[in-house]
Formats: sequence, C-alpha cells, structure tokens
Amino acid sequence: MEIITSVTTMQRWSREVHRQGQTVAFVPTMGYLHEGHLALIRAAQTAGDKVVVSLFVNPTQFGPQEDFAHYPRDRARDEALCRDADVAACFIPATEEMYAPDHQIYMEEPAAARLLEGAHRPGHFRGVLTVVAKLFGAVQPDVAVFGEKDAQQLWLVEKLVADLNFPVRIMAHPTVREPDGLAMSSRNKYLQPAQRERATCLYRALQVAAQKVAAGETRAAVVLESMQPVLATVPEARIDYVALVDPGTFRPLEQEVSTPCRAVLAVRIGSTRLIDTMLLSAGNET
Amino acid sequence: MEIITSVTTMQRWSREVHRQGQTVAFVPTMGYLHEGHLALIRAAQTAGDKVVVSLFVNPTQFGPQEDFAHYPRDRARDEALCRDADVAACFIPATEEMYAPDHQIYMEEPAAARLLEGAHRPGHFRGVLTVVAKLFGAVQPDVAVFGEKDAQQLWLVEKLVADLNFPVRIMAHPTVREPDGLAMSSRNKYLQPAQRERATCLYRALQVAAQKVAAGETRAAVVLESMQPVLATVPEARIDYVALVDPGTFRPLEQEVSTPCRAVLAVRIGSTRLIDTMLLSAGNET
Repeated sequence: MEIITSVTTMQRWSREVHRQGQTVAFVPTMGYLHEGHLALIRAAQTAGDKVVVSLFVNPTQFGPQEDFAHYPRDRARDEALCRDADVAACFIPATEEMYAPDHQIYMEEPAAARLLEGAHRPGHFRGVLTVVAKLFGAVQPDVAVFGEKDAQQLWLVEKLVADLNFPVRIMAHPTVREPDGLAMSSRNKYLQPAQRERATCLYRALQVAAQKVAAGETRAAVVLESMQPVLATVPEARIDYVALVDPGTFRPLEQEVSTPCRAVLAVRIGSTRLIDTMLLSAGNET
Repeated sequence: MEIITSVTTMQRWSREVHRQGQTVAFVPTMGYLHEGHLALIRAAQTAGDKVVVSLFVNPTQFGPQEDFAHYPRDRARDEALCRDADVAACFIPATEEMYAPDHQIYMEEPAAARLLEGAHRPGHFRGVLTVVAKLFGAVQPDVAVFGEKDAQQLWLVEKLVADLNFPVRIMAHPTVREPDGLAMSSRNKYLQPAQRERATCLYRALQVAAQKVAAGETRAAVVLESMQPVLATVPEARIDYVALVDPGTFRPLEQEVSTPCRAVLAVRIGSTRLIDTMLLSAGNET
C-alpha cells in the first residue's frame, strides 16, 4: 500500500492508474476508521480497480466551537486497517498541503446547505464542499463512496458533482449500525457507557417514524410528533433538529409526506452530537 | 472537427484522447473570435496534442445591467475559424446544458476578486470562477490558455487551479493588439469609428506608465498621475479604475512600486467598457 502525502504525487499516481486502463475508487474519510468506513472500502473494491482512502481531518468544516482539536485520530491503526482491507493507496496530506497559507478559493453554500445541519453548523458545508472538490482534484477518482448517514452531505456532494461536471460517479452506502441500532460514527467514542446505551434513541425514533409512514400516515407533523416520546426517554438528549425531507431536493416537508421521504435528526447526548437518518417508505417497505 | 454540445459527450471525447496517451489543450472563449483568440489557439496547438475551443457566452458572469443579451455572437463564423485553425473539437453547450434549472453550486469570490473589475462588476468573478470550473470538468484539459488582457481573471483562474487541485496547467498568452495598440476584444465591435480611434488612449496611458517605471519612478501616485493626461484627451472617456497591482497577489500598490508591477485600467468610451493591462518593469525592459 502506498502512503501518499502530496497532492502532486497523488495526481501522478492516479494518472498512472488511468494510463493502465484502470479505474480509481475513492473513500474520503477523516480517519479513526470504524466498521462503517470498512464497509465503504469494501464497496469501493467492487466499484473500481484501485481503492484510494484519504485520511484528513478537514479544519474548514469545523466551527470555532466544535471538536476539530480533539477529533479522534489514530493514524497507525488507520493505516493498518487500510492495508488489511487491500487499499492501494492512502492519501494523508498535512493540513498545510491542503490549505496553503494563501488558500482563498472556497465553494459557496447553496440555500439547501444552510438548513438542518447547515443551520446548526454555520460554514460546515462550505468546508465540506471545498475539501471534497480539493480531494477530487488530488485523487481524480472515477467513483467515490459516501455513507448515507451524512445524508445532507451526500446530497450536496451529488449536487457538487452534477453542477461542476466532476467526472466522478457517487456511490451511496447504507448506514452501518451497531447491533443495537446506533449508527457507527467516530464520534461515538465520546459517549460515556451510560450515554452509549441511551444513544440508541435516535435509531428507535427513526424506527417509530418508519412504522408510522409504513402504516399510511402522511401528515408530517404526526410523523414527527411520534418520534418525540422516544427521544424524551433520554432526559439529557437535546434535539438540534428532527425533520422529514424530500430526498430529491433535501427541502423539509412540513405538510403532506410523499414517499419515500427521508427522516433526519441531530441530537446531543451530553456534549456529543449525533446524527442519523432513515428513508421512510409507504406500504410494507421500511 | 467535432462539434460537441453535451457535457458527457465532451468528457467522453477527452477521456478517449487521454486513453490514447495524448493531451488536451483548451481555449475557453465566449465566441465572436478575433485575432487574439486565434493567437491563443495557436499557442494551444504548441502545448497539447488536441485543441478544444469552447464557445459559450456565460450568463452568470454578466451583471443585470450588462451586455449579456447583445454580446456579439456569430457561431457559423466561429466554427469556420476553428476549423481553419485545426481545432480538434468545438464545445458549444446550450445555456441549459451548462446551467440546469436546479443548478446551485457556485464558487465564492475571494477578497481579491472584489477589487478592481470585481468592484465594478459585482458577481462577475463568481460567474467566471464557476464557469471555468464547470468547463474544466467538461473538457478535462491538461493545459488551458488564457489571455493576459483579462489579467485579474487570469490571476484568479491560476488561484482556482492551485487551490482546488485542478490537474491543469494554465498558460498565459500576451495581449494581442491592433496595429495602433488597441487590445483586441469582442467588445471593440461596439465602438463607433471616431470612438475606435480614441480607444487607443488605454494603450497610450499604459505606455506612459511603463516609461515612468522604466525611468526609475517608484511612487505609485506619480505613475498613476502620469496616465491621467492621456486619458483626459478623450472627453467621453470615463475611468472605472486605474491601478498598479502586485502581480503575485493582485493587491493594489498604493505607496511604493516594486517591479515588475502590473498596471490595469478599465475605461468606458461612450457605452463601451474596455480594459487593458501592462506589466511594468524597471530599467530598459518595457
């Protein structure tokens, strides 16, 4: 496995893969890999000839009050996991390699990026869209795999690719969950044992909503209200948002629910902020 | 010569060129080609194996009061000129092909894009940076040729490429001038015959500044003042800006001039807005 730290070396590496008639499948990560990332890597193995994983904690997507400084990092373990997963190259740029002192070009946040996650994390998607464009420029992937858990991010990355004509196919991977339903996330590490148990309230609330919609409920307010008692069982849970959105536009549905719709929520358990999502379908699909 | 109107066809065409181990040299234009464009095309022929010229009047770089609707267009003549110049492919997308109704992703204007041209044309560089990123996505060039006349644009495109890691080499081409010094521009067509003659005041003012700096003048104010009498000879000339900038940062130099510096100006002759620029060097280089 190659360890690549410079943008130009990364570009040269991918150019050589392409010159050999092979494709590059890319999994961008912030490192501290878990089973969810490994599932994305396995999906990438089926989608392209050579898999590249980036490990980069992107400073520009964290707010000043957020957890950039203490976001968990374990480069040696991440590299070992990538090696075991038959990753062809790990792209691990230093912060200064990705953001030179005179870096000035950023992506604008479209209106859809200022809702939900964007409303609670101002500037977050500006940083996400910028770093994804920069990573695509460095890695030159044919396909890139993103987790569905970060549903609004996934939606925006698909928009970025469509609007700026990136020649990259975006592959969405279903959320990988712990046996009790908690969506896997590097931030789960922040949870104390008692909190860890209660953190399943996000998944349970989504299941309740899914059952409502499957049973034919079409009033958004009723679906959203059905989730509240589940979240209320955890007194320390503070809700940032709970919403149903149109999967095509990521706009919140406030009246009638057309299916499938996507439920999204962000909840703080103590000081740990968790997000989760589920696609809700009518009839007997959940 | 191929005429290509869709983004995906353009991408496929370039992928095939690359698969054959050849390179793509790109000249983005708004059409209505003149000798300046043809010089860029000839430069592109020396820089890559296959030359692609785009003909696209980009609506997002025009302000609401600007000349988008009556910007000159002559597609048949442009195609014939490209054919004669051995262009391999002309990329001529419709507006809707480049900007779908749900297009949302734009580039932010960095601070340096809000000065000079950017100050007088709010949103102009947001549109320029966005369309250049989109055209690079469609054409996948190895090298792209831009004219030095649009000096601030050239500077920003170089920044775009550096900051977003586009694997494109930017080649700057010296301004091509009419025999009397007027910089070639599609907008020269707007000038009435008497205006056309007076429009050389931009070039003559730049020459005076160049002589001042070559003679050792280092006070920005003195250099700028030396240009005023030349512009004042044309009573209908209205100055948008005249400035000296650091070529590395494109920041205006207001005190001491270090060389080489770049003189830039925008002047309206009647309703026609013209820009020009010159690199000013100390000693006997002009």
